[in-house]
Amino acid sequence: MDKAFQMTKARSDTPPKRPVMLAIAGDSAAGKTTLAKGLVEAIGADRCTMMCVDDYHRYDRGERKQLPFTALHPDCNYMSIMEQHLQLLATGEPILKPIYDHGTGQLVRPVLVEPKDVVIVEGLLPLYSKMSRACFDVRVYLDPPEELRRQWKVTRDTTKRGYSKEQVLAELDRREAESAEFIRPQREYADVVVRFSPIAVRHDPPGTPLSAELMLRPTIHHPDLTGVLVPGMRRAIHQKLERDENGRPVDTVHVHGYVSLEESRLVEKTIWSALGYEGEAPACLGTLGDAPRSEPLAITQLLLLYHVLDLLGTPHS
Amino acid sequence: MDKAFQMTKARSDTPPKRPVMLAIAGDSAAGKTTLAKGLVEAIGADRCTMMCVDDYHRYDRGERKQLPFTALHPDCNYMSIMEQHLQLLATGEPILKPIYDHGTGQLVRPVLVEPKDVVIVEGLLPLYSKMSRACFDVRVYLDPPEELRRQWKVTRDTTKRGYSKEQVLAELDRREAESAEFIRPQREYADVVVRFSPIAVRHDPPGTPLSAELMLRPTIHHPDLTGVLVPGMRRAIHQKLERDENGRPVDTVHVHGYVSLEESRLVEKTIWSALGYEGEAPACLGTLGDAPRSEPLAITQLLLLYHVLDLLGTPHS
Repeated sequence: MDKAFQMTKARSDTPPKRPVMLAIAGDSAAGKTTLAKGLVEAIGADRCTMMCVDDYHRYDRGERKQLPFTALHPDCNYMSIMEQHLQLLATGEPILKPIYDHGTGQLVRPVLVEPKDVVIVEGLLPLYSKMSRACFDVRVYLDPPEELRRQWKVTRDTTKRGYSKEQVLAELDRREAESAEFIRPQREYADVVVRFSPIAVRHDPPGTPLSAELMLRPTIHHPDLTGVLVPGMRRAIHQKLERDENGRPVDTVHVHGYVSLEESRLVEKTIWSALGYEGEAPACLGTLGDAPRSEPLAITQLLLLYHVLDLLGTPHS
Repeated sequence: MDKAFQMTKARSDTPPKRPVMLAIAGDSAAGKTTLAKGLVEAIGADRCTMMCVDDYHRYDRGERKQLPFTALHPDCNYMSIMEQHLQLLATGEPILKPIYDHGTGQLVRPVLVEPKDVVIVEGLLPLYSKMSRACFDVRVYLDPPEELRRQWKVTRDTTKRGYSKEQVLAELDRREAESAEFIRPQREYADVVVRFSPIAVRHDPPGTPLSAELMLRPTIHHPDLTGVLVPGMRRAIHQKLERDENGRPVDTVHVHGYVSLEESRLVEKTIWSALGYEGEAPACLGTLGDAPRSEPLAITQLLLLYHVLDLLGTPHS
């Protein structure tokens, strides 16, 4: 490569705009797409690039049958290419992204992905390496209880991906060791860890939305909720100063499934007005397919939306 | 993207080694693969990555039928991704390269390409843009007379790609305007322009290898041949100071098809010893499939090999 290369770089037009990069990591069927969808709708699809990094498979389904690991294993994926593509997107450059066809198990024609103002990256391993983590402004890890995730995976893969319940359970077992070794350690690097789950000690009526436990690490600046989570509300939403499993200080916010719409809206309005907006937060948050709207999900999404809009430079009050 | 990104970059291991980058541009069936093959063999396949940039098609064959341009048109290709991939290779980084299946006309599973010590890139448009040109240390353009190229294309596409002669000729006509607009202008940016052709005024016996006319632009440092191309040899090989079509000074070296093995070897030995090697230049040069060895091709390849080995830092005398 000659000197002209550097000169061309220096002489080129203004560099591309760097997008806001948000990662949503988590195991299969942890709820990544559900969480992302409401965010994309709130940000606006025209401003938002959403992509999944589970397409960087080095082997197709047939080839994997001969191999001693599952698709979760980093050796089963072009991890350095995933890192490279995340870096390119983070610097505003387009990529030609590989595509894995879940229907046929084949690697097929790649697609052009161009970063819009916001890039939401979801998948099994986006926070696996230091280099990939460094590409993101906000890192989220979805951490439902294993039993709940297994139920979700069985439901999805039997209804939408054509597998039998036995096949899904067998696959979950086959993946367990690699989930523990490669997927779950990403939790430690997340700025926000989200855990949707029923509350064990309560007996909520059927249909009560899941509660959310949000671990907010001080690795990014979260909006101040201490003023709003006043004693009167503490039954449904409360924030606590705790230590994570490594002894590091974190805030945890609990949003109970039975939180009332009024209480939820107050929290949402506080986050929303911290950004300089008046009135109600976007109504699309909290959507759960055909199920009733979930206030814990809405608050979780709004917290992430806060970071995205904040980084985009939306007017503050 | 946060500060950690820069820190990670700065803290990472020694940067990857930058390979020597050689481009061989030219129209379809201009002889790019033939020229490249002998080079790869001389350099050693273990040190050499060879790739074709004609796979960056934006549309497959079916989609192109609906479009007003052929595969030669930059709008028909992911040019910015081609540039990005050339930059990555030039900085020693791997790429996940798209693949176009000439048999089916489909875009298929991409492949990992890792740059070895030398990257030889051949194709229709590697010198099309300023950014792509800047990625190369040595830029070659193959410029056979159109009539000869048409013959070569008919022969290749009817014997190896399953087309009829009529189909190939119709395709050549369909591409002519875009060849003139996008392919041939690359000639101007080449450090070395290679034209294999019969010499019109002579009547060589059938089977005489084609002659070569090499235009050596002073954009890179060519080995000094003035001492070796002594008067006694001038019947078969001669060098001339000329002007190119834009009036810029160039050296042209003519190697006649009937050059004797002795004369050819003397030129080869001069170039070879300029690199600090003793004895004969690699015997694999000049190979033309099943046809007799071509001394003009061997000298052309050796001149390019000179640049590659020189840039690799092979010991000079």
